[in-house]
Amino acid sequence: MLTAKGAATRQRIIEAAAAEIRERGVTATKLEDVCQRSATGKSQLFHYFPEGKEQLLLAVAQLEAGRVIEDQQPHLGQLTSWTAWQRWRDVVVERYRRQGVHCPMGVLITELGRHTPAAQALTGQLVEQWQRQVQAGIEAMQGNNQVGPGVDPARTAAAMIAAIQGGVTILMSTGSADHLEAALDLCLDYLRASGQST
Amino acid sequence: MLTAKGAATRQRIIEAAAAEIRERGVTATKLEDVCQRSATGKSQLFHYFPEGKEQLLLAVAQLEAGRVIEDQQPHLGQLTSWTAWQRWRDVVVERYRRQGVHCPMGVLITELGRHTPAAQALTGQLVEQWQRQVQAGIEAMQGNNQVGPGVDPARTAAAMIAAIQGGVTILMSTGSADHLEAALDLCLDYLRASGQST
Repeated sequence: MLTAKGAATRQRIIEAAAAEIRERGVTATKLEDVCQRSATGKSQLFHYFPEGKEQLLLAVAQLEAGRVIEDQQPHLGQLTSWTAWQRWRDVVVERYRRQGVHCPMGVLITELGRHTPAAQALTGQLVEQWQRQVQAGIEAMQGNNQVGPGVDPARTAAAMIAAIQGGVTILMSTGSADHLEAALDLCLDYLRASGQST
Repeated sequence: MLTAKGAATRQRIIEAAAAEIRERGVTATKLEDVCQRSATGKSQLFHYFPEGKEQLLLAVAQLEAGRVIEDQQPHLGQLTSWTAWQRWRDVVVERYRRQGVHCPMGVLITELGRHTPAAQALTGQLVEQWQRQVQAGIEAMQGNNQVGPGVDPARTAAAMIAAIQGGVTILMSTGSADHLEAALDLCLDYLRASGQST
């Protein structure tokens, strides 16, 4: 267990590393720059990250995964009306449009090795956490009788996460958010239509 | 222009390189192995690919992009009944399930540099070609009055390509086709529901 002060220092190192990586990329980020930016010494850095850069990168990836969810709040956590769903949809599109062709999370996962247990655990958790909140929203809308009872909340949430993921992947390749918008709108139209036919 | 024999040799080199890359990965594939496998000499290889390995990798990426489409035929080219759509959906799921966590096309695009003009042109063409055929299928179903007139064929096709892309990306990370299946099924349900409400 870290003391409160220790936890704060560790967090400062992670945030400094995240900022360096966003500015320069993973390869060009040196531990010296992270130390300078976080006003810590190298021995402090190795105290919190004894395994060095790779362990630090994993912590940064965790931070970036957390940001993916946070950036969608408070909307993602309260998908209880069509207005809320629409606002969430707009926030997601805007977030990824702003992010453009460079995805900090994707870069880190590639660097850690897409197929390593650590990277897989992290992406798995992100997908699960994201999906659970979308699912809760669908269930809330079923409770309101605005989404039809025939809709499978877990499976539909999984489909929506896939649709967003694919839209973002295409955005990262083309620079255009068209696919992401079309995919999210199709999912929302699907949910709306299910409620109208009941 | 190549002679017929020249074109055949060039094709043999590309296919040998594709096979080597599928077996060993891009980094471990040496031009010597490609020559041996295709029964060509190094001077022949450089005659067809004067810029060397990178030019050859681009040609292999083109081959793999073509395979993505071919593997979905004849279904993708004739999406004119719900049976055909369902068969196509099953073929797509099966193709990516078999492929598993390693995507030859993705590996090549990463190697060429995701943001290089050559890689972007190639992925752009693949997305466009794929999407055009899905769009033609939606238009055919509208002609049959099986998909509602309110469905935008181009935008819906874009959403479906995004959904597949996202499902495949998650499959490559988790090894499970659940997201891909859920995403495709949601899109098909959306199309079916549009026809029932008219």
